[in-house]
Amino acid sequence: MTEKKPLRVAVAGLGTVGGGVVKVLQKQADLLKSRCGRAIELVAVSSRSKGKRTDLDLSGISWIDNPIDLAHESNIDVIIETIGGDSGIALDLTRAALTSGKAVITANKAMLAKHGTGLAKLADQYETSLHFEASVAGGIPIVKRLREGLAANRLSHLYGILNGTCNYILTQMEKTGASFQDVLSKAQALGYAEVDPTLDVGGHDAAHKLSILAAVAFGMPIRYEGMYVEGITEITKEDIQFARELGYRIKLLGLAGVKDGSVDQRVHPCMISLNTPIADVGDVFNAVVVEGDFVGQSLLTGRGAGEGPTASAVVADLIDVARGIRLPVFGVPLSDLQELTPLDMGEHRGQYYIRLGLKDQSGAIASVTNILASHNISIQSMIQRGRSENESVPVVIVTHEAKEADIQKALKAIDTLPASLEKGNMIRIVHFC
Amino acid sequence: MTEKKPLRVAVAGLGTVGGGVVKVLQKQADLLKSRCGRAIELVAVSSRSKGKRTDLDLSGISWIDNPIDLAHESNIDVIIETIGGDSGIALDLTRAALTSGKAVITANKAMLAKHGTGLAKLADQYETSLHFEASVAGGIPIVKRLREGLAANRLSHLYGILNGTCNYILTQMEKTGASFQDVLSKAQALGYAEVDPTLDVGGHDAAHKLSILAAVAFGMPIRYEGMYVEGITEITKEDIQFARELGYRIKLLGLAGVKDGSVDQRVHPCMISLNTPIADVGDVFNAVVVEGDFVGQSLLTGRGAGEGPTASAVVADLIDVARGIRLPVFGVPLSDLQELTPLDMGEHRGQYYIRLGLKDQSGAIASVTNILASHNISIQSMIQRGRSENESVPVVIVTHEAKEADIQKALKAIDTLPASLEKGNMIRIVHFC
Repeated sequence: MTEKKPLRVAVAGLGTVGGGVVKVLQKQADLLKSRCGRAIELVAVSSRSKGKRTDLDLSGISWIDNPIDLAHESNIDVIIETIGGDSGIALDLTRAALTSGKAVITANKAMLAKHGTGLAKLADQYETSLHFEASVAGGIPIVKRLREGLAANRLSHLYGILNGTCNYILTQMEKTGASFQDVLSKAQALGYAEVDPTLDVGGHDAAHKLSILAAVAFGMPIRYEGMYVEGITEITKEDIQFARELGYRIKLLGLAGVKDGSVDQRVHPCMISLNTPIADVGDVFNAVVVEGDFVGQSLLTGRGAGEGPTASAVVADLIDVARGIRLPVFGVPLSDLQELTPLDMGEHRGQYYIRLGLKDQSGAIASVTNILASHNISIQSMIQRGRSENESVPVVIVTHEAKEADIQKALKAIDTLPASLEKGNMIRIVHFC
Repeated sequence: MTEKKPLRVAVAGLGTVGGGVVKVLQKQADLLKSRCGRAIELVAVSSRSKGKRTDLDLSGISWIDNPIDLAHESNIDVIIETIGGDSGIALDLTRAALTSGKAVITANKAMLAKHGTGLAKLADQYETSLHFEASVAGGIPIVKRLREGLAANRLSHLYGILNGTCNYILTQMEKTGASFQDVLSKAQALGYAEVDPTLDVGGHDAAHKLSILAAVAFGMPIRYEGMYVEGITEITKEDIQFARELGYRIKLLGLAGVKDGSVDQRVHPCMISLNTPIADVGDVFNAVVVEGDFVGQSLLTGRGAGEGPTASAVVADLIDVARGIRLPVFGVPLSDLQELTPLDMGEHRGQYYIRLGLKDQSGAIASVTNILASHNISIQSMIQRGRSENESVPVVIVTHEAKEADIQKALKAIDTLPASLEKGNMIRIVHFC
């Protein structure tokens, strides 16, 4: 057998992910050659700050100042984009590389959420490929599983813990009894949370990932815009305690499902029963549950982020490219993608946990229950904690199944009551079968 | 783009798996065509008992009486072997099909455990492919994960719950307090256990699967012969209760690891801590934990058997064939497979749980502890339950780390004591980090 030509790779961006990829390619060179039947050669890198990564051995590798130039180098087959950002240089590079017929591997979920469908079209048009295993839960290999391992199934539902930072914060709040703010500060000190944590704790990072998973699972264009997204910033230590008391745990979940031509995609804190398999997935771990018509339910857990898992996922994509595996970006040809109608969050039905801070005075509870009743919301249980005349006492209400729009209206009305001393908080209770 | 030729498929065997595959191919025909860019056509079937599967629509599909003939039909590209048995017709068909250059997909772990390396050589020699996702935990897609999703990693360890029948029995013994025999009978009535359950409850089925996983994970020939295999038939309801008391749960695990040119593969009941992630995987579910040098630890759970999950795995392999994906059978070329030395089970070191039935007389415990001490076994804790003069009372001993060979010798010596009224039972305590 004649030896196959090496696959020539460039890495754009030398942050955590890019640096990790360089390490994997160097440490596993022999293994990769054996697995792929050809060598994988790192030929070029590009990064904002030349000479900053003194821990990496970059001898013999071309340094290209402007990453866009990588797209036009004739000795490069694949570009690994680890620059980040939903547009700007990352997007320009990805577009230029695909247009030059080079395969692109990216971990950039923000870019994919915003421009993924267009980039997939570009890859198709120029007969090359776009890979993004590392964009969602690197330690899991979920994209390959959806697109290949479970490809014999029609997938109807998926849900998961898609953001390690939020999962760490919620786990620590429960373990230590500390407040959101205190745990966030600790997470920032440990490097588990960014200096500007908005993308994570606001739920947007999980939503980016969910939009990518839904596209691959259901064979639909990426629909990030308009998705209902709610983060964990309003979760208090009291909510954590009440959840426990009620037999639940609070997790930030991404949930997606298709039914009768509609798609439901949302990210928000959920109260889930303690015996749900993902209830025990704590700290920075991610987990995804998928339901298929033949395979039934399957659960995957693993590290979602970090240098090793993310680089492992990037290089798994690279191995596919080296092995000559080129699949439709979302598992089916673009012309077969389903156009699904997004479900209106106001139409969502489920049980709700509502926490109020009411003045301890006669008639306060009655006003609240009247408002709920007038919005077709019936109460399953109520907890009132402590008494402290004329001061705010927490009142927790668990509703029977109700409509989201009704809950929202009722909460607004309750907030205007004179007895309402704090803004009410609501968490959706989600049951999985 | 010109339309690609359909992939022509034959199914040999129309039992649970074969019948399930027919159903998937018929129900998902459009989806599969979209995913593969070509149609998958079921052109022929063969089965012992013609006309038995009246639930299947076999109109327009050729019926071939002798499955071996499928290997020589020129209008068949892929043969799906679901006949079963570690040799005989299944093996003859697989060999003949590979020799004719046809791809083979099989769920037959017993055949692979015994002949897998030889069959892989045949596939190589005739430039075709051998696929077996369905042979191990169909609901998980673990083979693809090891060979592709985690291919950037050197894998050092894996372990898992690989037999749904045993897991169901152990789960039910714990839940109901019933004996092994009672739960087995119930499992047989429910169809979760075979009429002859030896392959499952003796640990052999799990061992077949472990040998396949280890080959793919570590890049080694399949080494089933000589593997240490112990089933769950000796586990009593008392063991289940004592395990719980000690903070453990009993699971039948397959464990494999490589270190310094040696490979350790074994199947036996394990006491594992309740906070091990797989401790909560109950009933017929399977779970596999894999450890890679970059990805860290990842866990997969799903249904291991049954018509839907197994057929889903078979068809995932078929989709790979239709998409033109052909990889080395064990992830690396056969010439790169590592020859590893099997570890001797006698050299295994760990903590042990020992349950004895001793006559309640003075000096009985002293004789036991003397024997243990003389075999270099030190005791971490001991539970003695109840008193009943001159009758057998259970005594449970948890040892500090000890050597397997010493434990085996000590147990033999204890069994010969006059005070020893029942044969002692031993379960290995396994700690995962």
